[in-house]
Amino acid sequence: MQRRDQILVAAREEFTRNGFHATSMDDIIRAAGMSPGGVYGYFASKDAIITEIATQVVDGLSSAVDDVLSAQPTLRLADAMRELVARIDDLVEPGGRLALVVWGEAQRDPAMAALAARQAGRVREGVTRLVARAQESGELPTGADTDAVGAAAFSLIAGYLLQQRILGDLTPGTYSDAVSTLLATAASRSSRRPARPRSVQ
Amino acid sequence: MQRRDQILVAAREEFTRNGFHATSMDDIIRAAGMSPGGVYGYFASKDAIITEIATQVVDGLSSAVDDVLSAQPTLRLADAMRELVARIDDLVEPGGRLALVVWGEAQRDPAMAALAARQAGRVREGVTRLVARAQESGELPTGADTDAVGAAAFSLIAGYLLQQRILGDLTPGTYSDAVSTLLATAASRSSRRPARPRSVQ
Repeated sequence: MQRRDQILVAAREEFTRNGFHATSMDDIIRAAGMSPGGVYGYFASKDAIITEIATQVVDGLSSAVDDVLSAQPTLRLADAMRELVARIDDLVEPGGRLALVVWGEAQRDPAMAALAARQAGRVREGVTRLVARAQESGELPTGADTDAVGAAAFSLIAGYLLQQRILGDLTPGTYSDAVSTLLATAASRSSRRPARPRSVQ
Repeated sequence: MQRRDQILVAAREEFTRNGFHATSMDDIIRAAGMSPGGVYGYFASKDAIITEIATQVVDGLSSAVDDVLSAQPTLRLADAMRELVARIDDLVEPGGRLALVVWGEAQRDPAMAALAARQAGRVREGVTRLVARAQESGELPTGADTDAVGAAAFSLIAGYLLQQRILGDLTPGTYSDAVSTLLATAASRSSRRPARPRSVQ
């Protein structure tokens, strides 16, 4: 393992065990089994480590959104969301549990609140692009509020993450099928009122 | 204000400011401006106070689910979910922010994890009853996995709570319309294949 990754793994374990607030750089340095200079050479502060972990998770989700957006033939919204949700465990692990810790600490720590808003906003923006495309293709009504529907679609992703960490009883397969059932709007509406030739059934 | 409520208000403020872990009964007693005996007369421990606050929030959500289930004429799933989401701010405040704190601390505290699972499970169970009814009435395919679709519908509620506390840019009105747009499956599918006379358009 690269030394940089070694620090991130140790930090993730410390953060999950004790929260961000109660974890110090000294704790991370000890857990990583490195010298202070070795750790500070990669990360100037605890905040820099937290930001790096969150950014990695969100980079993964964002590039998955790009994948489903660029898939050929074009995916319907229900299928695109199914793809995203089916991959979510792989995309967010091992940082998934920390997302909930960030959300919790964001309620009292302004720096954590800014980080949570930035990262959630990035993922939601990607999902909203899927919604916008579904409107352009006639799958969803053009009069609907794109940002609000994007927010509802984002809830389907964030809600999975939440339930996995709180209730722990979902599987990506059954949940993504369920999301597709709820979003089948697209299929039924567009089959009645095709706005343009469809490349995918 | 009743003395019991006075304790709960003070505790909510302390918990939001410092988290559950870092808040002691002494902090709550001081914030409530009462004697230790006065506070302990109502609540035996900090855990009892946390449980009471969480239970109040979830009782409110559960009775809202009962309301939409018993509404006459019967509400379609999209309309029932719209009703629930539209009322969510009123239902969860002022405890909404604490839900995220509970979820975060549940990642490292087994007692908090049990509380979070119990309360999220109660709300999800209610939403799943709405989904089951939508299947019985032919709005959703009978072959769909009721529990998984219930989990996806629950995400739409939990995701609102999350986004309000992290991004803070939703309104119940636009979000509930968006949820209804995503769930319009019901309307379009049942209009093509009515399973029984519909009392609501």
